[in-house]
Amino acid sequence: MAKTARVVQRDALHNIVKRIFVAAGCSDQHATVVADVLLWANLRGVDSHGVVRVPRYLEMFRSGEAKANPTLKTQRLRPAAMLVEADGAPGPIALQTAMMAAIDAARENGVAWASVRGTVHTGAIGYYAELAARQGMIGVGIVAGVPNMAYHGARGAGVATSPLAIAVPSTNHGTLLLDMATATIALGKIAQHKIKGLPLLDGAALDAEGLPTTDPAKAVTPLPMAGAKGSGMSLMFELMTSVLVGNPIIAPFHAKAPGGRKHRQNAAMLAIDIATFSDPGTFKSLVDETASAIKAMAPGEAGVDVLLPGERGARAFAQRLKEGIPIPPPTWEALVEAARAVGLDIDA
Amino acid sequence: MAKTARVVQRDALHNIVKRIFVAAGCSDQHATVVADVLLWANLRGVDSHGVVRVPRYLEMFRSGEAKANPTLKTQRLRPAAMLVEADGAPGPIALQTAMMAAIDAARENGVAWASVRGTVHTGAIGYYAELAARQGMIGVGIVAGVPNMAYHGARGAGVATSPLAIAVPSTNHGTLLLDMATATIALGKIAQHKIKGLPLLDGAALDAEGLPTTDPAKAVTPLPMAGAKGSGMSLMFELMTSVLVGNPIIAPFHAKAPGGRKHRQNAAMLAIDIATFSDPGTFKSLVDETASAIKAMAPGEAGVDVLLPGERGARAFAQRLKEGIPIPPPTWEALVEAARAVGLDIDA
Repeated sequence: MAKTARVVQRDALHNIVKRIFVAAGCSDQHATVVADVLLWANLRGVDSHGVVRVPRYLEMFRSGEAKANPTLKTQRLRPAAMLVEADGAPGPIALQTAMMAAIDAARENGVAWASVRGTVHTGAIGYYAELAARQGMIGVGIVAGVPNMAYHGARGAGVATSPLAIAVPSTNHGTLLLDMATATIALGKIAQHKIKGLPLLDGAALDAEGLPTTDPAKAVTPLPMAGAKGSGMSLMFELMTSVLVGNPIIAPFHAKAPGGRKHRQNAAMLAIDIATFSDPGTFKSLVDETASAIKAMAPGEAGVDVLLPGERGARAFAQRLKEGIPIPPPTWEALVEAARAVGLDIDA
Repeated sequence: MAKTARVVQRDALHNIVKRIFVAAGCSDQHATVVADVLLWANLRGVDSHGVVRVPRYLEMFRSGEAKANPTLKTQRLRPAAMLVEADGAPGPIALQTAMMAAIDAARENGVAWASVRGTVHTGAIGYYAELAARQGMIGVGIVAGVPNMAYHGARGAGVATSPLAIAVPSTNHGTLLLDMATATIALGKIAQHKIKGLPLLDGAALDAEGLPTTDPAKAVTPLPMAGAKGSGMSLMFELMTSVLVGNPIIAPFHAKAPGGRKHRQNAAMLAIDIATFSDPGTFKSLVDETASAIKAMAPGEAGVDVLLPGERGARAFAQRLKEGIPIPPPTWEALVEAARAVGLDIDA
């Protein structure tokens, strides 16, 4: 009999993750933030960015790629520009710090930007954009990482699947939240196709030779979304994050420099204070009118809802908050193993 | 014998465009800016956004959709946030004003944002992003307009083909310039396919019933690039531009409100001062290293160059600056006609 997924309530799973990170050497506050961000992804149905990532963070603490007890330094370089030196902190700690700093500075200056230098795995970046939306702001986030996606017109990995997130608050439609990678297909989805033996769509991935393939067993490099547009956005995100703070990733990767392939990420968060431009209540009403107009459009397929950015995730969030989060057996076993390595028995 | 394109030198064509706008009632300064922006598009090979647009601007002056002699008002709402009330100015005048204001404020505050309220046809928005790059900044621009593109999963036009531009300066690779619409295919390209009788690619457009078609004669609505990502970006751009300044376009369009289908646009410009974060010389060297790494990748097709964002346009620019700009007979005739309507004979 195949093992079925264990269903865990949000708070119980949050507590497990928090305890693991504390046992691994994180402060209580940092462990809480990491658990918040990972659980948010699981609740929204983005399991690839949820608790499944825990073992990899612990591995990076052991290898020195990341630090469990980093010394973050936030500098205000100019009134509307901040730099967060992440000192190898897990992405959730660094990006939450950056967005909160951007929100504070935007209240005074109208908009503000916070760069993040030298972090690892950022998790689902919609989380940080939504922090701004909850404070009556528009939040934008971008991230750059080690190349794992094709560059349009070239063979092999050229740039990263670097994501963009934009969050806008409304009154009746929750937070409109676009959270997208610049790739045609996620690496995790290629793996799922492989398990199920389903071919990929044309134009989704390259094989090890750098040639197009629809065979998921041969696919190693996802192609950029919309060709030159997707890889162009990813390249620009590298310049706007990594290169802006003097911590390039793409150039050392291709130069085969020492450490050039080591996992690391840089990011930037932008907060735009709505009250600077409009009455916030009027703004949110107009967002609702816009959202309602889109929702009222005739669907392409009868009976299939027209969805707003982030609507599917918000539905999953409500459902999983009530019914719990399904954890597949391999994920649970890896979590038990990771906990055991830091001296905890979470299976008790 | 088919008429061939007339080749006109940049300065001569610039002078013609400027004289037409002055004759239509624009100030010398405004007419110069419009000519600068339209000629820039022609030089870069983006003829759909060049002098071919002149008759439509004049038509909008006559209909009252735009003003030849607008009173622009730039307010500094907060240290890093500006609002440009465009008063129906042609896009080039409004967006140039906004980006220059953002550049000034970014020098002091690190970053700055300028919203544009109530303009028309913005031209090729890469132009404004490049203004920032020339001043040692990263420039970003977004625009929202009247729906003319499908929304993912819905029938008919839901959102606009709203573009994004990002410009980053380098030392040896010129300005890296991403300038992209959020559609799979430009409306102009559908028209070209129709003329040539070539079918469209799957997933490029919808017909009048809102159903997918590959027949260019039936295609009326381009589909968003990368499905939900492209229409999601376009919707977010509307919220970040039009809705932020209380001048929505999408909601009144769908509500069939009076004037809801009238041509109008809103925009936002962001300038990020590189010197705030890095030594500008070091930054530009790292951009060069990154650009060189991408250029050195093995091409997907032997003998086909791997291109940087904006590289094709920069090549066309250099060539057309030297050899002149080819103007197809219908474009030239429309220009002659537009000039005649304001009392000029440009064919002399």
